[in-house]
Amino acid sequence: MIYTAILGHGTVGSGVAEILIKHNKHVSEKVHDDISVKYILELRDFSNLSYAAKFTKDFEKIINDNDVKIVAEVMGGISPAYDFVKRCLMSGKSVVSSNKELVAAKGAELLEIAAKNNVNFLFEASVGGGIPILRPIAQCLAANDINTITGILNGTTNYILNKMIVDGMDFATALSLAKEKGFAEKDPTADIEGHDACRKICILASLAFGKHVYPEQVKTEGISKVTLEDVSYADKFNCAIKLIARAKRLPNGKICADVSPRLVGKNNILSSVDGVFNAIVVRGDATGDVMFYGKGAGKMPTASAVVADIIDCAKHLHARKYFYWQDGESDYVVDENSKERLYVLLKSSDFKSLVDSFNNAFPENTWNIKNEYSGEIAFITDEDFEDKIFAKIKKIKYDSFKYMKALI
Amino acid sequence: MIYTAILGHGTVGSGVAEILIKHNKHVSEKVHDDISVKYILELRDFSNLSYAAKFTKDFEKIINDNDVKIVAEVMGGISPAYDFVKRCLMSGKSVVSSNKELVAAKGAELLEIAAKNNVNFLFEASVGGGIPILRPIAQCLAANDINTITGILNGTTNYILNKMIVDGMDFATALSLAKEKGFAEKDPTADIEGHDACRKICILASLAFGKHVYPEQVKTEGISKVTLEDVSYADKFNCAIKLIARAKRLPNGKICADVSPRLVGKNNILSSVDGVFNAIVVRGDATGDVMFYGKGAGKMPTASAVVADIIDCAKHLHARKYFYWQDGESDYVVDENSKERLYVLLKSSDFKSLVDSFNNAFPENTWNIKNEYSGEIAFITDEDFEDKIFAKIKKIKYDSFKYMKALI
Repeated sequence: MIYTAILGHGTVGSGVAEILIKHNKHVSEKVHDDISVKYILELRDFSNLSYAAKFTKDFEKIINDNDVKIVAEVMGGISPAYDFVKRCLMSGKSVVSSNKELVAAKGAELLEIAAKNNVNFLFEASVGGGIPILRPIAQCLAANDINTITGILNGTTNYILNKMIVDGMDFATALSLAKEKGFAEKDPTADIEGHDACRKICILASLAFGKHVYPEQVKTEGISKVTLEDVSYADKFNCAIKLIARAKRLPNGKICADVSPRLVGKNNILSSVDGVFNAIVVRGDATGDVMFYGKGAGKMPTASAVVADIIDCAKHLHARKYFYWQDGESDYVVDENSKERLYVLLKSSDFKSLVDSFNNAFPENTWNIKNEYSGEIAFITDEDFEDKIFAKIKKIKYDSFKYMKALI
Repeated sequence: MIYTAILGHGTVGSGVAEILIKHNKHVSEKVHDDISVKYILELRDFSNLSYAAKFTKDFEKIINDNDVKIVAEVMGGISPAYDFVKRCLMSGKSVVSSNKELVAAKGAELLEIAAKNNVNFLFEASVGGGIPILRPIAQCLAANDINTITGILNGTTNYILNKMIVDGMDFATALSLAKEKGFAEKDPTADIEGHDACRKICILASLAFGKHVYPEQVKTEGISKVTLEDVSYADKFNCAIKLIARAKRLPNGKICADVSPRLVGKNNILSSVDGVFNAIVVRGDATGDVMFYGKGAGKMPTASAVVADIIDCAKHLHARKYFYWQDGESDYVVDENSKERLYVLLKSSDFKSLVDSFNNAFPENTWNIKNEYSGEIAFITDEDFEDKIFAKIKKIKYDSFKYMKALI
């Protein structure tokens, strides 16, 4: 018999309890041992549940019970999850977690503690919900040098952008609809402003490149400034706007990472990722591009990923998984002046001098739309260093200026 | 030091040798031990290579060397690979293989032998080349009941269909081009007629559903009958034609599986899988649809998957991976009269009576194209049992009749 405890009984936690308790036979079969939930830590009252007897408000009971070998942390947030996870690992319990905020902030430290105590710390559910992504990176792509990870990592923003693209809704209306449908939280800031995607790309980059990338090191921009005008120009350029999280290993071993809305060419399969779906493209030197796609959130997808980690821990109670990255230095992530293609939108009350100065600044550019009626030029640049592109734009006579990166 | 042997030095085998020898430091770091190639079994002469000293023509040398703990079988075909793999496993060596023909024909037996001898038999490279798919199914989706697996599993046929769709090439021309570009073999039968895709869906279904599905149990149809006319009608129905391999678990626990060209709706992400790319969609009860995408073949992608398996074996020399399925019974795979949507193309020299009888047989059908000029009706049926659809078609007055399944 292998005893587990679940910390938290929210959306994901209740899903984990449901699978482990209701589908116990199925899970135990996979483990080749009986698996049992001994405690569920939760302050709220669930005395009406059939498994109410498992609930406790006292973490000390769990930490002091040596029978508990695996703990699922599904509380979210840093405090008190960080303390709880640390203490569990130090007392020889393996921990699985769906908590991206915690892993993005403290992953290196917690993995180090797990290694020292010869237990496992797994967190497949923290990125991409039910999409298998961390294990494939760690195991299946082990013979590759990974160069780039590019992902649509937030379903809420992808849903909103999709509504803007397909139904011509403006941002505010699409956000309201997402809230109504339960795809956006009451306070949607973390999703809309890109923080959620940022945490996930930090976890992916840390694992793929071997050193911790911290959220505050990643330039992050959300989608709140994307307008229907941008969406429509993107469509004319045969692109779709997506919130793209990206991490790249530079030849000098440093990492370059950002989260920002981008125009994605329709020949890129990421442009076909619609609705609340997520997708992650991993570029390895041997495999080329490999993509993982599915629903990135939701109770049962995420809970099933947590349970898969529990199963893996249960099978490896006495054998550590090699799941590890080092701490990163403050200069590990650099704000590189990278080569990009940019989408640029310029407006002017003097359309003629806008056009003339544009033609002078970008004489070779053939990928542009000149709209005399609205006094605008939208164009997509060739790939070049960003500062070079901006230097050229400076020579143009415009009243207002806006740009977005492209992935074409 | 962990010693390995490579059976075969063809396309994949030379890639494996290259990674293990040239990138030895990288691989050894991942294993946390030194890994070394002791033998390469090959009848052909490679005496010009820097690592020529490792070559041998004598399998007995390898099997009798107790230092060799891991053997990579990358010869392809059943004989002598089957014998060699069996003997390696029985003598306590772990085996990794890229040989889909072998795994599809003998997987259950070899997994059983591996289990009895407490060694590993891994074959990630046998399906989807460098795309991680078997481990994610076995580990990450462990808390799911998998219902359906749907895949584009053969790059050659996908390339040919893509050329027909995008460039309007006919089948024969597209096949010639594929040969020229090295995407099709001199004898392309196994690809074109669906046998290659069939082997791969057998492996996927065996792993996902727990019992061996044999190639001869799977109804298999290739793409040689797909015409430009079909491609053009598909486009008008907002679909693309893809060679789809499918396996489904029925409520009674039996399996239904087939390989056939299908019209795939453009809102299905599989329709966006172009060129030599492969993609596999796994539908789990908790995760919903999860897709894995990448190049399904090629020297380095496949070799890197073999090496990842070697790394995994090396890390688990004394701990067996739970990678297993039982043998299947002869009635395990059933030729179910399943519910499908069909694309149907009817021709007649008497167009008026064709149309009239069609309208009578399918009075509700609104998804059809009537082409008086060519005397044809193309239509897509609602989802229904195939025999019911065929009974209706029988009532129509046509001269010739053709159909394909759809996935819309």
